Amino acid sequence: MSKTRTHHCGQITEAQIGETVTLNGWVQTRRDLGGVLFIDLRDRSGIVQIVFNPAYSGEALTIADRARSEYVLSVTGKVVKRSPETVNPNLPTGEVEVQITEIEVLNTAKTPPFFIEDGIEVDESLRLKYRYLDLRRPEMQNTLRLRSKASKIFRDFLDEQGFFEVETPILTKSSPEGARDYLVPSRVHEGEFFALPQSPQLYKQLLMVSGIERYFQIARCFRDEDLRADRQPEFTQVDLETSFLSQDELLGMMEQLMARLFKETINVDIPLPFQRLTYAEAMDKYGSDKPDLRFGLELIQVSDLVASSGVKVFASVIEKGGEVKVLNAKGCGTWSRKEIDDLGPFAARYGAKGLAWIQVKEGEFKGPIVKFFTPEEIEALKERTGAAEGDLLLFSADTKKVVADVLGALRLKIGKQLGLINENEFKFAWVVDFPLLEWDEDAKRYVALHHPFTRPREEDLHLLDTNPDQVLAQAYDIVLNGYEVGGGSMRIYKREIQEKMFAALGLSQEEAKDKFGYLLDAFEYGTPPHGGMAFGLDRLVMLLSGRTNLRETIAFPKTASATDLMMNAPSEVDQSQLEQLHIKLAPTVKKTAEEAKA
Amino acid sequence: MSKTRTHHCGQITEAQIGETVTLNGWVQTRRDLGGVLFIDLRDRSGIVQIVFNPAYSGEALTIADRARSEYVLSVTGKVVKRSPETVNPNLPTGEVEVQITEIEVLNTAKTPPFFIEDGIEVDESLRLKYRYLDLRRPEMQNTLRLRSKASKIFRDFLDEQGFFEVETPILTKSSPEGARDYLVPSRVHEGEFFALPQSPQLYKQLLMVSGIERYFQIARCFRDEDLRADRQPEFTQVDLETSFLSQDELLGMMEQLMARLFKETINVDIPLPFQRLTYAEAMDKYGSDKPDLRFGLELIQVSDLVASSGVKVFASVIEKGGEVKVLNAKGCGTWSRKEIDDLGPFAARYGAKGLAWIQVKEGEFKGPIVKFFTPEEIEALKERTGAAEGDLLLFSADTKKVVADVLGALRLKIGKQLGLINENEFKFAWVVDFPLLEWDEDAKRYVALHHPFTRPREEDLHLLDTNPDQVLAQAYDIVLNGYEVGGGSMRIYKREIQEKMFAALGLSQEEAKDKFGYLLDAFEYGTPPHGGMAFGLDRLVMLLSGRTNLRETIAFPKTASATDLMMNAPSEVDQSQLEQLHIKLAPTVKKTAEEAKA
Repeated sequence: MSKTRTHHCGQITEAQIGETVTLNGWVQTRRDLGGVLFIDLRDRSGIVQIVFNPAYSGEALTIADRARSEYVLSVTGKVVKRSPETVNPNLPTGEVEVQITEIEVLNTAKTPPFFIEDGIEVDESLRLKYRYLDLRRPEMQNTLRLRSKASKIFRDFLDEQGFFEVETPILTKSSPEGARDYLVPSRVHEGEFFALPQSPQLYKQLLMVSGIERYFQIARCFRDEDLRADRQPEFTQVDLETSFLSQDELLGMMEQLMARLFKETINVDIPLPFQRLTYAEAMDKYGSDKPDLRFGLELIQVSDLVASSGVKVFASVIEKGGEVKVLNAKGCGTWSRKEIDDLGPFAARYGAKGLAWIQVKEGEFKGPIVKFFTPEEIEALKERTGAAEGDLLLFSADTKKVVADVLGALRLKIGKQLGLINENEFKFAWVVDFPLLEWDEDAKRYVALHHPFTRPREEDLHLLDTNPDQVLAQAYDIVLNGYEVGGGSMRIYKREIQEKMFAALGLSQEEAKDKFGYLLDAFEYGTPPHGGMAFGLDRLVMLLSGRTNLRETIAFPKTASATDLMMNAPSEVDQSQLEQLHIKLAPTVKKTAEEAKA
Repeated sequence: MSKTRTHHCGQITEAQIGETVTLNGWVQTRRDLGGVLFIDLRDRSGIVQIVFNPAYSGEALTIADRARSEYVLSVTGKVVKRSPETVNPNLPTGEVEVQITEIEVLNTAKTPPFFIEDGIEVDESLRLKYRYLDLRRPEMQNTLRLRSKASKIFRDFLDEQGFFEVETPILTKSSPEGARDYLVPSRVHEGEFFALPQSPQLYKQLLMVSGIERYFQIARCFRDEDLRADRQPEFTQVDLETSFLSQDELLGMMEQLMARLFKETINVDIPLPFQRLTYAEAMDKYGSDKPDLRFGLELIQVSDLVASSGVKVFASVIEKGGEVKVLNAKGCGTWSRKEIDDLGPFAARYGAKGLAWIQVKEGEFKGPIVKFFTPEEIEALKERTGAAEGDLLLFSADTKKVVADVLGALRLKIGKQLGLINENEFKFAWVVDFPLLEWDEDAKRYVALHHPFTRPREEDLHLLDTNPDQVLAQAYDIVLNGYEVGGGSMRIYKREIQEKMFAALGLSQEEAKDKFGYLLDAFEYGTPPHGGMAFGLDRLVMLLSGRTNLRETIAFPKTASATDLMMNAPSEVDQSQLEQLHIKLAPTVKKTAEEAKA
């Protein structure tokens, strides 16, 4: 058995000079200088230089000489100060080195498929296949360390606030509301299926019915959604629910939680309270319900000014209930025609059919549409948009949704391009007063903007039967630098309101009872007023660690096609396994595991 | 909006006398005494008496008068001392009551299907259907509170010891070694399946390859096993893994962890270090690898003494490689013939073909088999078993396994019956030196006693090819009062040994590569020596809370037939869902959801 480690590599400093230490770690680099062997030994904590010299290392030098990159060593030796010319100011341990007298090679290593160091440029699929090596790289270890710490801070805070951690089932019931479920065939109950939870929503509400009062869980959730770069089939949310708190009380507590998280992980002070925006304001000013508030560049309503202008498309859009808005790209008035035209395809991705524009040059409005405006209209536009010399006005005319999408996206693009964003700033805000419902043109019915358990505002309740699209919800999202990092709502807690809500969503009484009967029943046995929220842990860790990809924050992520490249999952299974589960592959599927092998 | 709660019910004591408080809670009981209404109001923290009196309550009395059991109230009033004759010494709040001046009924309630109080005698299936009401009962709330606290202690301890919490995937790869997998059909990859993890075993080992060094996770695990009363399809383990630690170092750390858990949850001091037993000792003395060490009553080997006796069955069993052992049931020599005979069917459940016995009465051995022994044999038996006046010797003669099962079970039964067990004692032990493999008579091959990744003892490695059944493993279980509450092992970390192990288990090289290629590959890139363990959280909470059923420790458990009675899961799903997943129900299954409805 090897000797017991006394220190971690990154801990060895001048304080240990003269001490004999035993270290465990991996060979980062080795250099042979005239018969003296220098190895950078790496463990979780950092790197230290160890030295094998014929003068004191004896047989240890012979053994060390066979070590290559990523060999695992146990070494013992004396900590000494480096000579001044060999000090490495880039290493925390750079003032010292360890003169090794004993060594054990704990394991050997083949040459890894990529360097174990930060900033490598390697195809991500290779990194995912060899994830166990990718995670050796310091930036990946630091992200996992930060994620672990973030979880601890969430738990400590919520524990102090009297939240119980309660685990809710992973094998649960399919509920076709929402995204697509992952299903799990039951062996015991032929022809029946469990579903993996899209969130613990119903369980946490039932825990409130149970009088648990404050619940939290760092919960795994599952959505079999269509693939997008930043989606994972399974993801983690910090899920919580409270009874008897008002929305303001809950939001205040959550702000404290965020402030503590950012202070204790990355030492950033978050000013409290957070800014609050209504959904309507956010859409109006930023074209987004998760605005990046690190810069201005707000959208400007000009429908009233251009409704009767000579620009036919403006007038016709407004007549059909649409609108015309302007983004004033300050200082972009000097852009070439080509630079402006290049915005077109970008805007088209967000639904724009065209992109009208005006430049302010030498005090004059310039551009193809200027001639359709009267001088009065130009004056009014100047005043409303604050257009000044060198500015570029970008017009979007379409339905409200398309205008918001197009100008919201252009705002972000131009904000970045103009360097308006301070990358070190963390700008939180609450977006509140979401609509309860939105019309789904495909399904020809209303769907819940948050979910069907969100409580309507008290004052809008009377509209639920007659004007459901005007009802606002007691729902809130927490946005940070253009990302939604959390969201929640006060919940319905009375049966009759929940039934009205189901009816507004087009569920028959029978369907409602079939799918959510237990919830409706539960509401009749003394359910307290309650509400809660959930934070996206993956995304928060991404923002805290300055990464731009959720996969970098997850130890073993899946690819955009929901594949685990390391373990090769999903995979074919034995026919006998399917038989036990009372299922068959559809005839369109070519092969089972055996057939594939045969 | 109702007023903000100032206190919890259970917090109201004499310290608050004179204060005006606002409480939220549920109506536990109500009593009307001559126009004055007394309500016991309950929240998570306890119960307090609130009073509505025409003298000060005004309209609040009228409103309160309509409240029934489990109504949810918000009340405001003044804390006063109770008159001496009305003090309730059974309540922590029994010295005071609250004179209510304001009330809001937050929600009404129907009469619940059972009383919301401890010790109810109600069919468990009714409790499970209305789990949201069952969890309102104080004993259930206390168990959930204890579970939450236990999780926190685990996390705090492991965090202090430098463990990172890392989440590993739930959607993973099927590996037919071990128990039956729950499968999840993939929508994107036709004909392929994910499996839910039986444990994070391989991921945690890969994290050690990654240099994470210390990992933990409170992990959900899934086994689609045949149904037993104390099994759940999903269960929770505190899962951990370390690099560079010796087995002794790890076990010592885990003992500290258990001591802290028991001290901080139920204020019990656990003496350290734990007793250590080898597997061979445990089986020999207690007939179990998870012995209850709160009492003695050890099994006594007598094969050598009875091998040539006149009891034919003893001689023949020994000749065939079996053995004869005795349990000396102290003081049971006075049992009637019927009492002794009643042990027969019990022993038969554990495989006994019969149960020979001898009573010591008036200094003599009595019983049907006594006549087959010589006086010398009787003397030798007396000496070996310590048989004294009033004792009952129970003999089991069979294969070693059956003898252990039968006498191990009888030992527990008689130990309980004789009151030898101190129910307030917590007796931990490590069982170590397990066999690496055991012969599976059905499969006609060796299977791993722990799992295929367990490291053989260094000194036994040479036996792996030639005498695999003699190889002992660096594996350990932690046992408590007759339960296995955790277990683990040092792991194989070299490819050639892992390949030998797979070969011993009858896997061809090709199969091994197909199923575990990534692990074998990983071992070649500098894998550190590592080992770990997992604790059964459900079972630990059961023992800490003095419950006898795992379901009492889980917020939303499943029944023995893996059913969620509250949500009615599993359930039928829509045909379209199956189509998207490229599966069909087997022809033997009668109906899909639509067909069932039609």
